[in-house]
Amino acid sequence: MRTTERERGQSDGARLPGGVPPPRPLTSPAVTTPVVRIGLLGCGTVGAALAALVGEQRDTIAARAGVDLRITRVAVRDLGRVRDVDLDPSVFTTDAAAVVTDPDVDVVVEVMGGVDPARDLVLAALAAGKPVVTANKELLATAGAEVFSAADAAQVDLLFEAAVAGGIPLVRPLRESLRGEPITRVMGIVNGTTNYILTRMAEAGAAYADALAEAQALGYAEADPTADVEGHDAGSKCAILASIAFGAQVTAADVHREGISRITAADIAYAARKGYVVKLLAVAELLPAADGGHDISARVHPAFVPATHPLAAVRESFNAVFVEGEAVGDLMFYGRGAGGGPTASAVLGDLIDAAVNRQHHTHGSIGELRPARLRPLDQLSSPFYICLEVADRPGVLAAVAGVFGRHGVSISSVEQTGRAERADLVFITHSAVEANVRATLAELGDLDVVRDIGSVLRVLDDL
Amino acid sequence: MRTTERERGQSDGARLPGGVPPPRPLTSPAVTTPVVRIGLLGCGTVGAALAALVGEQRDTIAARAGVDLRITRVAVRDLGRVRDVDLDPSVFTTDAAAVVTDPDVDVVVEVMGGVDPARDLVLAALAAGKPVVTANKELLATAGAEVFSAADAAQVDLLFEAAVAGGIPLVRPLRESLRGEPITRVMGIVNGTTNYILTRMAEAGAAYADALAEAQALGYAEADPTADVEGHDAGSKCAILASIAFGAQVTAADVHREGISRITAADIAYAARKGYVVKLLAVAELLPAADGGHDISARVHPAFVPATHPLAAVRESFNAVFVEGEAVGDLMFYGRGAGGGPTASAVLGDLIDAAVNRQHHTHGSIGELRPARLRPLDQLSSPFYICLEVADRPGVLAAVAGVFGRHGVSISSVEQTGRAERADLVFITHSAVEANVRATLAELGDLDVVRDIGSVLRVLDDL
Repeated sequence: MRTTERERGQSDGARLPGGVPPPRPLTSPAVTTPVVRIGLLGCGTVGAALAALVGEQRDTIAARAGVDLRITRVAVRDLGRVRDVDLDPSVFTTDAAAVVTDPDVDVVVEVMGGVDPARDLVLAALAAGKPVVTANKELLATAGAEVFSAADAAQVDLLFEAAVAGGIPLVRPLRESLRGEPITRVMGIVNGTTNYILTRMAEAGAAYADALAEAQALGYAEADPTADVEGHDAGSKCAILASIAFGAQVTAADVHREGISRITAADIAYAARKGYVVKLLAVAELLPAADGGHDISARVHPAFVPATHPLAAVRESFNAVFVEGEAVGDLMFYGRGAGGGPTASAVLGDLIDAAVNRQHHTHGSIGELRPARLRPLDQLSSPFYICLEVADRPGVLAAVAGVFGRHGVSISSVEQTGRAERADLVFITHSAVEANVRATLAELGDLDVVRDIGSVLRVLDDL
Repeated sequence: MRTTERERGQSDGARLPGGVPPPRPLTSPAVTTPVVRIGLLGCGTVGAALAALVGEQRDTIAARAGVDLRITRVAVRDLGRVRDVDLDPSVFTTDAAAVVTDPDVDVVVEVMGGVDPARDLVLAALAAGKPVVTANKELLATAGAEVFSAADAAQVDLLFEAAVAGGIPLVRPLRESLRGEPITRVMGIVNGTTNYILTRMAEAGAAYADALAEAQALGYAEADPTADVEGHDAGSKCAILASIAFGAQVTAADVHREGISRITAADIAYAARKGYVVKLLAVAELLPAADGGHDISARVHPAFVPATHPLAAVRESFNAVFVEGEAVGDLMFYGRGAGGGPTASAVLGDLIDAAVNRQHHTHGSIGELRPARLRPLDQLSSPFYICLEVADRPGVLAAVAGVFGRHGVSISSVEQTGRAERADLVFITHSAVEANVRATLAELGDLDVVRDIGSVLRVLDDL
């Protein structure tokens, strides 16, 4: 039989033998604060930070939010691993499936990551009527529509503030504060590793490989940095941002993705000379379509960002998400996108919300996600930065410029940066259609005066 | 007799004569979306922008949030004034007191500003059991504890996102996302007028008077700019930020306040040379006290902000609030702090929340505000920038430096910037206690070699 929260609260050391409750003490109202029992899936960096934070903040949370949070079950892979967590050893188990259906668990917190088995566990928890708080970007970027819809069917909360931009309160403002706001674009620096690398390249003039090695030494980058530097991590977050900003089904597979591993110190130095900073951006955009509806563009790529744009000032491993709305104008949310403390802070905010909602028999919903019509990249337009290594002889610029002209790509500036053994032609174009730029590059690749096509980067031109 | 929302929703053109409801049409679920009737107090820039936004977004809000928002009563001062608002003329009245108690009003939105009569009207609305959304910073900074407590007693929402930093979702993240987070400091640029003036002084080298005139010409500053440039507006917002961040009773009268009207182009140029930007900051800080408790410091003053700090990149009339938490680290919320569209967007987010909560018979609460123990300014410490006009003759620096030394104020750097008819000594101190700096300045003022004490500005030293 399932006890009510009130009964649990009183039974916690306050119930006399024989079941007679003591008189309610006037000096300690916390005794009757309803207990909410948490089943935690995963106890790595985030799980351990959460357990510590819940322990430290329990009284404050009880006073401010009226719920007494207790972590009562913790599913881990390896019971033998030593953990710096102040929890009774008896709460640990390797049977995650038993945690999510345990009648003595009120709210499930999933911080294990990955799609399997997290997906099945989250769905089972929701089916059992339990609110779920998750920090799992892969899960939501892969099976978001499915789990959101399962939460709606079960009429319980599915909260995921920590899944995008770590500790930054972003999902809640998008879901709630901006519910009545026509949002047109969400654009962010959502990967701290790549932002650290790009910051070091810009500020210390470091080469990509050296900045990456430094990030690895500091623990910001993995030994295999692919997920970060090739934009996979940012792609998952981009899919979630597009889904919640536009109420549309966008998965990681829908997101066009380019990484930063080919960016050179010369690209970044050139950007700086022209008043730009190179940033890896996740962009989710709502674009008016010819039929009166809207298409969605979701993409991750490095870009020249004007130095006066607020995103340009986001340094080191910080994240920031820029939100543009028709009424509200430009907003930006800045903070730590990763790390135990910030992520646990975001999970805790959600957890309190889920616990309070559960007490009030209410829950939030992001609503049903509509199928998205994605606009192909080829149809987008922006100015481009294009760096070509060319033969250093007369007539080269005319030949190269002719190719641009034939494809309708108009040149805003060109600069030759010669060195001992090579010459680079560096172009900034006016706004050009991606397909035309692609055709230009294909034809340039066939010219024998073009030795190599270097970086090709979009330029953010909204200022 | 008060009708229920369901009855109202059906009666809205969908009820047949004789009171027999028609079968619920499968294709138009919106017909049964409960109507929430809004009584609007004030119809100036924000009220008109809100009416337009509600009109445009009604269907989207109904689909996403399940409430059909209708502005049914609007209290204005002058019925004769021509308004660009698409509302039936019959909704307007000059009797605001009748609007807040009208049984046909479900939620009250107060965008009239000022303490009187807004305070009585808001209290009357709450006493009548109606949720209130307000954009009124003066009201909350003067009588916040009273109206919060009235809302709790009535068990209805009192929401005020628009009262601080206009369109920026900040109050909700502080109240909800960061409920479990130990916040140590909230520090922001919360006045767009002064930020515009300081930006023009920094970027165009303009004198204060010229930058102010430019802000007035653009409509950013009032003909009498006192409320902005002397920090009164920022002081009200600082009081509200301190109240919600720390759950404490802090009013505008508790906030130490210094404005920007004495800052010179030379101060700003010197700051730039040293790697700083001058910003008017509202700072609400939780400070550990000797007795194990905490004091609160709430103050508004210009400061040297390191150029690499995210607040330094906040330009023109934008606002931003930097939040520091123990677990989450540094956060920043950036956007438009004023203007019809942004403010209306924030009001609408609250309005949807209040309407949805009302349907679910639930409401939020910021909890009871505890009395605050304010730390006197004299006990705070920071580095200082101090500019003195002195006689240009030998021995002056020794005399001046001796005064600093006698008061325990240690000098980090000093520079003499001579001009034709005057010499300035510009100091940056190490971190010093305010009381000691004040005593230093008093003694310096008595030295005959000191002709004038110019700007004295605190230096933000957390980077």
